[in-house]
Amino acid sequence: MSRSLALSGFPEWLPEGRLVEQAIIDTARRVFELHGFASIETRSVEPLEQMLRKGEIDKEVYVLRRLHAAQDEPDPGLGLHFDLTVPFARYVLQHAGHLDFPFRRYQIQKVWRGERPQDGRFREFTQADIDVVDRDSLAFHHEVEMAVVMSTVLAELPIPRAVIHVSNRKLAEGFYRAVGATDPAAVLRAVDRLDKAGPDAVGRMLVADAGLSISAAEQCLAMAAIQAHDAGFVEQLEAIGPSNALMEEGIEELLAVIEGANRQRPGSVIADLRIARGLDYYTGTVYETMLEGHASIGSISSGGRYDALASDAKATYPGVGISLGVSRLVSVLLDRDLVQADRRVPSAVLVAVNDEQSRAASELVAGALRARGIPCEVAPKADRFGKQIRYADRRGIPYVWFPGIDAPLKDIRSGDQMAADPATWMPPAADLTPQIRATSLEQRSTA
Amino acid sequence: MSRSLALSGFPEWLPEGRLVEQAIIDTARRVFELHGFASIETRSVEPLEQMLRKGEIDKEVYVLRRLHAAQDEPDPGLGLHFDLTVPFARYVLQHAGHLDFPFRRYQIQKVWRGERPQDGRFREFTQADIDVVDRDSLAFHHEVEMAVVMSTVLAELPIPRAVIHVSNRKLAEGFYRAVGATDPAAVLRAVDRLDKAGPDAVGRMLVADAGLSISAAEQCLAMAAIQAHDAGFVEQLEAIGPSNALMEEGIEELLAVIEGANRQRPGSVIADLRIARGLDYYTGTVYETMLEGHASIGSISSGGRYDALASDAKATYPGVGISLGVSRLVSVLLDRDLVQADRRVPSAVLVAVNDEQSRAASELVAGALRARGIPCEVAPKADRFGKQIRYADRRGIPYVWFPGIDAPLKDIRSGDQMAADPATWMPPAADLTPQIRATSLEQRSTA
Repeated sequence: MSRSLALSGFPEWLPEGRLVEQAIIDTARRVFELHGFASIETRSVEPLEQMLRKGEIDKEVYVLRRLHAAQDEPDPGLGLHFDLTVPFARYVLQHAGHLDFPFRRYQIQKVWRGERPQDGRFREFTQADIDVVDRDSLAFHHEVEMAVVMSTVLAELPIPRAVIHVSNRKLAEGFYRAVGATDPAAVLRAVDRLDKAGPDAVGRMLVADAGLSISAAEQCLAMAAIQAHDAGFVEQLEAIGPSNALMEEGIEELLAVIEGANRQRPGSVIADLRIARGLDYYTGTVYETMLEGHASIGSISSGGRYDALASDAKATYPGVGISLGVSRLVSVLLDRDLVQADRRVPSAVLVAVNDEQSRAASELVAGALRARGIPCEVAPKADRFGKQIRYADRRGIPYVWFPGIDAPLKDIRSGDQMAADPATWMPPAADLTPQIRATSLEQRSTA
Repeated sequence: MSRSLALSGFPEWLPEGRLVEQAIIDTARRVFELHGFASIETRSVEPLEQMLRKGEIDKEVYVLRRLHAAQDEPDPGLGLHFDLTVPFARYVLQHAGHLDFPFRRYQIQKVWRGERPQDGRFREFTQADIDVVDRDSLAFHHEVEMAVVMSTVLAELPIPRAVIHVSNRKLAEGFYRAVGATDPAAVLRAVDRLDKAGPDAVGRMLVADAGLSISAAEQCLAMAAIQAHDAGFVEQLEAIGPSNALMEEGIEELLAVIEGANRQRPGSVIADLRIARGLDYYTGTVYETMLEGHASIGSISSGGRYDALASDAKATYPGVGISLGVSRLVSVLLDRDLVQADRRVPSAVLVAVNDEQSRAASELVAGALRARGIPCEVAPKADRFGKQIRYADRRGIPYVWFPGIDAPLKDIRSGDQMAADPATWMPPAADLTPQIRATSLEQRSTA
């Protein structure tokens, strides 16, 4: 049954998995708001012609039509958005007159990609994006800020260590031109394939597709191999040789991001000149984020600087943003058993029911607990107490309250029964709401 | 520009409107969790044949196709869900082996309806649903609980008073049969048109479409006019005359909901026998909710009991649920200027920047404030202080912090400047996060 109702590419979590997803989203939201980002949501659909600009012709998009469209009804030409950046650019243009610039926004929403059925990729997933957009010009320090904010989110999650890998488009384009490339975008596209195709194949692509000499291709591969936690990448670049003004500008910027972010959050970022990012619109800093021990899943948080994400007759809007792939992260955490929720429901307390006639008395206890922020539910049936305790136990609810007796509160983990007043008792903080914790290695091996 | 980029039926809020929406969603979630409902999300798409069962052939659905679908690729037959009930029923069947019954879930998600372009209705909107579903049989008291939980949400929102209007399908069907109806569903459909068509037209429909005698039609209209805050509806029904066993069962249930909910939350519900609900699957209690002074927008929260929302070869799953129309509510609150956010960003503090060389010192102050949960942002430019204060003022940020001076903290509303330590200072609770308040009548008249 389960198999026949599932749809490949459209992930769906059980309540305990959803708790993990909510914990990630709540943490992201809290950190974003602590940094002054305002929430927006955009509609889920955009006109196709807007989505397919900027060299995105190949994007897999889901197109909509009304089931009962009239014969002569014009096709509205609408598709589901495939990221949150294109809709945000449109939102900025549409509402510019009502926004304050620089505009700091976060956006946590689903996106859709019409991937081929056989590809096994997500066709629906949730992203959590932050961007800062300004009118005409945008201060550079926001390129440091994006890395700091996202690394703060990642550090607060119960996940393996995540490091943000940073490069810079000016550095890359400058370097490619300095080694003689006439089509830096083609070089970038080839370098972007390094993870999937490996250096030998990329080297051949650099010669065949990007028109580089063999020695220039080798220099590009050497450049892409550079990684450093600090200014060390500059020396490594100098050792390769080629240089020009654009590249120097990129080096300055990359240095500022690495040093600025690591000063605020030591070890949070690394210079990694392999980072290319496929999208055409990036013009400065670019970010990708690897989960330690799980590099095979690819980047869990990516983004970059764009000088002209949006523009109209009146203004150009440069911006910088970074996006957390919530669904991809949740899916690896659950599939690899890396985290666990300690219960399956929000309830900290099950209020038992003695008999159906006294259900109102149990509701009163529950009401008193809820009034002080303690989530609870009342037993659905006046079963014998053993069965009511099993109801709580199956769901991971830590306490059962038996109204009308001297020591009404039972911690069903320890079996301890204690005196408690519904008007004053408060559970330990760790019992108040479901806790999401990294699974220990022992737990994992027995899972 | 704004006009050309907007899409009719796809609402989108400015950041200050989104704050109102977030406040509503956050309140709903908090109350749902306090009552032990677990969160789930379902995928946004369902197979068309599943969505169009249960007499829902007329539903306006958006159908998806891949933009780059191959010529011979079979049409996947997928559509965007038009409510959260049909997907929930499928979720219960699909995951039944992993769920604990009775299963209490809440679900806050977008839904889509492929309404005709000219109808001016929402085509994308957010709903917040709770349901309790059990296997084989479901205890009646959950029909009281739904009204109590939703009225708690509504009472905590900064909105006009909302009262839940309740009726019962058994009462209605019993009454219709007692007056001689042979097709109670046709009577129900006619009565459901009362708000839009008025009693005269509905009376004619009852005779012409539902085959009632004129006196039976008059009795149905008299029955639909009954409203009572208490058991008074029973006497009014008896005054009309007709009765049978099914109707008596419905009366008992309606009485239990009205008295049970009003005992827990006085004035929260009213018996209103006009409430029919169009959907076929309801079998017991039905709910609709009117916003005082804004009845013209229709129900903002609706639902009911269904004996067999889902079933498979192994079991039948009865349930009861109620849904809050978040987008409809937000839209009326904003359009009619009924609520206001006191600022446009999460930040409680703008940390000023003396000059670009000392930006790190400002970041340190911001970091100390954030570590204690105070949302803040650092000024994007080292403009003169008057300009930095205007940056805060335009966004409604109440405080500006000037690092490195004796009395660094300025409340820009009062102009007061005071001593404060970033490691200990805490703003009043009302300044910590944006507050959403009902607009006073004076504010509205000058708006």
